Amino acid sequence: MNKITQLFNIKYPIIQGGMIWNSGYKLASAVSNSGGLGLIGAGSMYPEVLREHIQKCKNATDKPFGVNIPMLYPNIEEIMNIVVEEGVKIVFTSAGNPKTWTSFLKEKGITVVHVVSSSVFALKAQDAGVDAVVAEGFEAGGHNGREETTTLTLIPMVKEKIQIPLIAAGGIATGRGMLAAMILGADGVQVGSRFAASIESSAHNNFKETIINTKEGGTHLTLKELAPVRLVKNKFYYDVQTLYEKCPSQEELVHLLGRARAKKGMFEGDLDEGELEIGQIAGLIHDVLPVEQIIQQMMTEFDVACKEKSKFEF
Amino acid sequence: MNKITQLFNIKYPIIQGGMIWNSGYKLASAVSNSGGLGLIGAGSMYPEVLREHIQKCKNATDKPFGVNIPMLYPNIEEIMNIVVEEGVKIVFTSAGNPKTWTSFLKEKGITVVHVVSSSVFALKAQDAGVDAVVAEGFEAGGHNGREETTTLTLIPMVKEKIQIPLIAAGGIATGRGMLAAMILGADGVQVGSRFAASIESSAHNNFKETIINTKEGGTHLTLKELAPVRLVKNKFYYDVQTLYEKCPSQEELVHLLGRARAKKGMFEGDLDEGELEIGQIAGLIHDVLPVEQIIQQMMTEFDVACKEKSKFEF
Repeated sequence: MNKITQLFNIKYPIIQGGMIWNSGYKLASAVSNSGGLGLIGAGSMYPEVLREHIQKCKNATDKPFGVNIPMLYPNIEEIMNIVVEEGVKIVFTSAGNPKTWTSFLKEKGITVVHVVSSSVFALKAQDAGVDAVVAEGFEAGGHNGREETTTLTLIPMVKEKIQIPLIAAGGIATGRGMLAAMILGADGVQVGSRFAASIESSAHNNFKETIINTKEGGTHLTLKELAPVRLVKNKFYYDVQTLYEKCPSQEELVHLLGRARAKKGMFEGDLDEGELEIGQIAGLIHDVLPVEQIIQQMMTEFDVACKEKSKFEF
Repeated sequence: MNKITQLFNIKYPIIQGGMIWNSGYKLASAVSNSGGLGLIGAGSMYPEVLREHIQKCKNATDKPFGVNIPMLYPNIEEIMNIVVEEGVKIVFTSAGNPKTWTSFLKEKGITVVHVVSSSVFALKAQDAGVDAVVAEGFEAGGHNGREETTTLTLIPMVKEKIQIPLIAAGGIATGRGMLAAMILGADGVQVGSRFAASIESSAHNNFKETIINTKEGGTHLTLKELAPVRLVKNKFYYDVQTLYEKCPSQEELVHLLGRARAKKGMFEGDLDEGELEIGQIAGLIHDVLPVEQIIQQMMTEFDVACKEKSKFEF
């Protein structure tokens, strides 16, 4: 038991990333039923779709689960009202100012966690009254911070600045990665890519196959002028890089990006034209597994590594 | 005791990075005398200067020490002959093909370690017959790999591929960072920035002050078209970024870079026009200390972290 398992009333300090197009109620409830904290990813859902997933999640598990909400969402007020109406107990917020919604949610008795990429933002989140922060490093898949600070260096720097519980994200897919993050000062971990490559993820099978086929060096942080995002190096990625050779304007980048690329790639399985958001740790993920098995493997490896640690002597 | 302490016959699996303009015989011998492995950085030395540092290092310590040699060095044959003539027992090679010099050195009874940034290069080094590899992540200061793989993800991916001992580099300045790297599969760590900010480093005091004043986000990997290098965001760095806005040719970048910027910054202390090579972990380094104290602090923290138990039981 530690600060994070107590905060969420869960067995293991493993939180599933609320990834767009991957994180419906099936994934979230499977993670919660296996002792972690499942999160429904609101970022790719219309408000009424989100409501449906929350209701189905309540039916699929009696364990705690949460909703991840990017605050730049256009229907943000409607979304916030839905999580309150549906009695969601835990909300992770990202992509926005934690001051905007934290007190609204806290007044309703909701546990609030905010995702950051630096200790400056971590302090702001703590000041805004959140219950915990997720600090996410450069190796994470999808949207990412501008300072490019890696998880190994970010976690101890955030730990030095804040007092509230700290969750490490980016580059963690195994029990050893989890233990390493906790040795650095994290109280728990958020895991994305590993759960995207699970049976219960709502992503297209083509995307899941891509995760397990992605080798070391197979992803890159790009589109930094718009919003930095780590993508698999597929045709769309190389189209972006070719455009970069011509020193494009921001408008040209926006035009190439177009709309709904993430849905096209991750949900519809278009591996050429879609945006495929995966973390660097994909190089260590070799199979699509049921969530329960992923969590059991992580915890078994974690326990083995803990015992090793007590034997290091110089 | 483990594979790395046995390989080098040292007390602690801590290897000091052979950083240019920082790593003369004073730093190397201090690290070796404190139980780690000191390395003289040949990359910033004329051949006869290197010979002098090796001779002085032999006088300053009876413990094992080594020399770090970037193989792109123009006088590489002369350098290799000097390390053999002077009876150096350990050589770390970087920036080049490990096939070129490994058998030459091994035939002379020298222990050879090669620095890589990916598991593909780690395998090539193993095939070339080196005794160990250093795998260095994206967060490291100075020159860096093109794939931008972070230490947290690189170490387990390299570990999965090679059988020889593995040294983790990039982002490690503390006992906790060291233990995290070893949990991920490393047998030892190479530490740069922390030793650059030591009393015994040959760098200019201005540079040492810069390290301890660099905050999280204060460095950036740039000049990727030439050779990717992580620099402190000083005037020279911003001059490079301003040039990038104009979509420069490679020649324009080479022209702006000019010559001897690293010496100007790190050795002569010109904080505006110099190239200041520091890792992301500088944000966690707050004081310039004697080497012995750095190593003692690391090992004390390492031992404490090894013994922590209760918070890891779930």
